[in-house]
Amino acid sequence: EIAAALGGRAEALLDGVRILMTAGPTREPVDPVRFLGNRSSGRMGYALAEALATLGAKVALVTGPTALPSPPVAELVRVESALEMHAAVMGRAPQCDIFIGAAAVADYRPVDPAVRKIKKDAGELTIQLVRNPDILAEVAALRPGPFTVGFAAETDRVIDYARGKLEKKGLDLIAANQVGGERGGFEREDNALTVLWDGGARELPMMSKTRLARELAALIAERYGDRHAASA
Amino acid sequence: EIAAALGGRAEALLDGVRILMTAGPTREPVDPVRFLGNRSSGRMGYALAEALATLGAKVALVTGPTALPSPPVAELVRVESALEMHAAVMGRAPQCDIFIGAAAVADYRPVDPAVRKIKKDAGELTIQLVRNPDILAEVAALRPGPFTVGFAAETDRVIDYARGKLEKKGLDLIAANQVGGERGGFEREDNALTVLWDGGARELPMMSKTRLARELAALIAERYGDRHAASA
Repeated sequence: EIAAALGGRAEALLDGVRILMTAGPTREPVDPVRFLGNRSSGRMGYALAEALATLGAKVALVTGPTALPSPPVAELVRVESALEMHAAVMGRAPQCDIFIGAAAVADYRPVDPAVRKIKKDAGELTIQLVRNPDILAEVAALRPGPFTVGFAAETDRVIDYARGKLEKKGLDLIAANQVGGERGGFEREDNALTVLWDGGARELPMMSKTRLARELAALIAERYGDRHAASA
Repeated sequence: EIAAALGGRAEALLDGVRILMTAGPTREPVDPVRFLGNRSSGRMGYALAEALATLGAKVALVTGPTALPSPPVAELVRVESALEMHAAVMGRAPQCDIFIGAAAVADYRPVDPAVRKIKKDAGELTIQLVRNPDILAEVAALRPGPFTVGFAAETDRVIDYARGKLEKKGLDLIAANQVGGERGGFEREDNALTVLWDGGARELPMMSKTRLARELAALIAERYGDRHAASA
């Protein structure tokens, strides 16, 4: 009965709520054929987008290149690089209630992508990189701004890093998971998350990404609803 | 009737012929989550593997990460990096009659991949790269060696570059195409090829990659049969 009540409450909370999300990796061009990429499959983000839509949210998903079928969202925007994702997000962020940065956005991009394919003349080569804009931090800094949710995928000291990221970027919620080990994450069907917010935390143990996405969607709805109620 | 005769001849030529192929991109690890990749979809290579199998060849396919369904080949070996592809190919090359290097193998890899995810502390970052082994040239240099087929994907001066690569690496056949423009290539459904060999060339105009793969498979069978007949 409690579960049913919570389920009903979560659905009510996201009905008509405008959610802007990012998912997947970005590709940072080195030249016309080479790029700097990352191992995000987009699976967790796509599953979360679908779970949020099921809870009644109007979801706009800005996605990097993935091999996944399109999720049933109100708007789907396909981008490649972090700069393209930044432009797509910043143009839409002022009109959303919740922003969820689930994409694995490249922190760096090659300074000056070559117009022609680089030839393999030299024995060694150096790629100079510069920082990309921090989409999540920029959205979190908007006033008035949406309820902002981030992800932290780390190879070690995951919780410490995630708590620091939550505070430093001024996020409302962060979902942390370990990658590169045996514990799930990128390119896996299963995953586990530790969700943190100011003054609280919840463990979502190892389960399928689809089920995990539903649990996380419900938790986002709950935290968003609480803040909404507090500020009303 | 001529087409039928040629078709029959091509089938006869590849019946039981052992073909070792590579396809797809390689991923060169920068750290546990980031990699240097390229835009090869693997579609042309997979279609060619299937076309060759249809002509009776016993195909072993060494493939980098793709989003494609597995083609119907005798052996499928999944690898990620150029070094892994190199090891998989060199262990099998002495036992094959034809080698086809259709993979877009990264020419360079990061010198020393980080064991932990690189933190975004600095405003700038440099990735030091070193040359990867040249799988195609190493196979072409084997004595006795297989009939060796390469690909050249270039953004400009495609034919000049392909002819140079054919001679420099000692290949028996090379298939050249332009990428990064409007003329097909990576991440496209259609493609066109110019096929070159010592003393000859043939244009395979823009068509679906599936049909192009069949035409190329027939041409490989024809050229392999000719050299076989000449040396017998």
